[in-house]
Amino acid sequence: MKKLRRSARLVDMTQHLLARPHKLIPLTFFADQYGSAKSSISEDLSIIKELFELEGIGLLKTVAGAAGGVKYIPKASPEEAERTMKDLCGMLQSPNRLLPGGYLYMADLLGNPEALGKIGRIFASAFAESGADIVMTVESKGIPLAYAAAQYLNIPVVIVRRYSKVTEGSVVSINYVSGSSKRIQTMSLARRSMPEHSKVLIIDDFMKAGGTVRGMIDLLEEFKAEVAGIGIFMETANVPELLVDDYVSLLSMTEVDTRDKEVRLELGNYFTK
Amino acid sequence: MKKLRRSARLVDMTQHLLARPHKLIPLTFFADQYGSAKSSISEDLSIIKELFELEGIGLLKTVAGAAGGVKYIPKASPEEAERTMKDLCGMLQSPNRLLPGGYLYMADLLGNPEALGKIGRIFASAFAESGADIVMTVESKGIPLAYAAAQYLNIPVVIVRRYSKVTEGSVVSINYVSGSSKRIQTMSLARRSMPEHSKVLIIDDFMKAGGTVRGMIDLLEEFKAEVAGIGIFMETANVPELLVDDYVSLLSMTEVDTRDKEVRLELGNYFTK
Repeated sequence: MKKLRRSARLVDMTQHLLARPHKLIPLTFFADQYGSAKSSISEDLSIIKELFELEGIGLLKTVAGAAGGVKYIPKASPEEAERTMKDLCGMLQSPNRLLPGGYLYMADLLGNPEALGKIGRIFASAFAESGADIVMTVESKGIPLAYAAAQYLNIPVVIVRRYSKVTEGSVVSINYVSGSSKRIQTMSLARRSMPEHSKVLIIDDFMKAGGTVRGMIDLLEEFKAEVAGIGIFMETANVPELLVDDYVSLLSMTEVDTRDKEVRLELGNYFTK
Repeated sequence: MKKLRRSARLVDMTQHLLARPHKLIPLTFFADQYGSAKSSISEDLSIIKELFELEGIGLLKTVAGAAGGVKYIPKASPEEAERTMKDLCGMLQSPNRLLPGGYLYMADLLGNPEALGKIGRIFASAFAESGADIVMTVESKGIPLAYAAAQYLNIPVVIVRRYSKVTEGSVVSINYVSGSSKRIQTMSLARRSMPEHSKVLIIDDFMKAGGTVRGMIDLLEEFKAEVAGIGIFMETANVPELLVDDYVSLLSMTEVDTRDKEVRLELGNYFTK
């Protein structure tokens, strides 16, 4: 690449960092790329760092030493996260979203790239220090949320199947009991989809009693993997026998009256605990 | 926001544009935001434009006049797209990926945010001028690809269900015949998921005879929607009775021998026609 002036360098470094969250980039990479001195690169980075913090885009973490470099950590500030989720509360509380069984229609929200990006950034903030190296979800509603979080954490996604598929080779299956309906169900994961000893962030869209999440935790044992965190977009509040202890929820459905079509949402435990 | 110097403005405008592909942003927005003259903003934009083109990130399209502004169009150059897909060919041709029924194991690839980003950018380049306002796919394998494309086109995703779900309210269902297995299957889409007269980009991971895509096209008629384009990640070559005419494929599986575990992939029609 030809030698770039500072203005062009700033544009390029910004896009390069944004496209590679959580990845350590040696200063020498940029210095070689642009034919610039490392001291100039450091100055560029401090301009980017200041703006990223000012605008609430995230942190630039500098690691000193020979193996050092710079890492972009996407972060939603607590205020921004709260504002985002309160907006979504307002939108999701509309009575015509209430469906039989106490579910909420959320497909439009989960189909919107901008909203998903904001939610993914919040999950990535909540689990930035979790050490997770894989995001796991169960098909199908949780898939967009899992990818949104994974994109900002820059780690891969594995998808647990509820229906048998011929296209994944040998699978590990377990039976689990749905916590709310008490029915026995099956979930499976392709044997080759996850290396042993993975640290797994479980993401799902909705949790009532936690049977599905419990199933995913049990499935992880078959892969000698460990749970790095559990992130739930919306939980049902006041469940008598919750099957999962330690999780982060962004929203909580505190009241639902399917007859009078009333639903009440509040911020989840990420904001209150 | 406080008045920013050019260096900080460049960083902020870069991230703002990258986060909002295909969206027209008035120059006055930036001018007001930073307390700068429009002429300075124009100079900033020309620096960003030059770098985006140099680095193959995409185009900055300037629209003149009172309703004018600037729009970021993500583009993968033909060379970059070809390089990306050839790399994926090499990776996917490995014999241990071949599964019964002539399918290929691709879950790891479709779980990788970096690879997905590249593929999404290629789909977004192919359909940048399609006028699509919604991306549609069928659960579950196509979902990550649909979101990857939708993110760069900055339009929402709707997901057609193969299995009945209680959580989407009233749905429109159709039966369709799987082109390769000739079995009758059902797919459905929530009534409220798509406004009438939508222009829909259909994205799917794999196409043999095209029965599933045909089903999606038929379903669109029920919503008075039209097909803006069809993007297939991998097609099977030399299918005798193809049910779909006009589509873009990125890869083509030209030979598959499940007994000897041999598979041969070539670039799809996006590169050859």
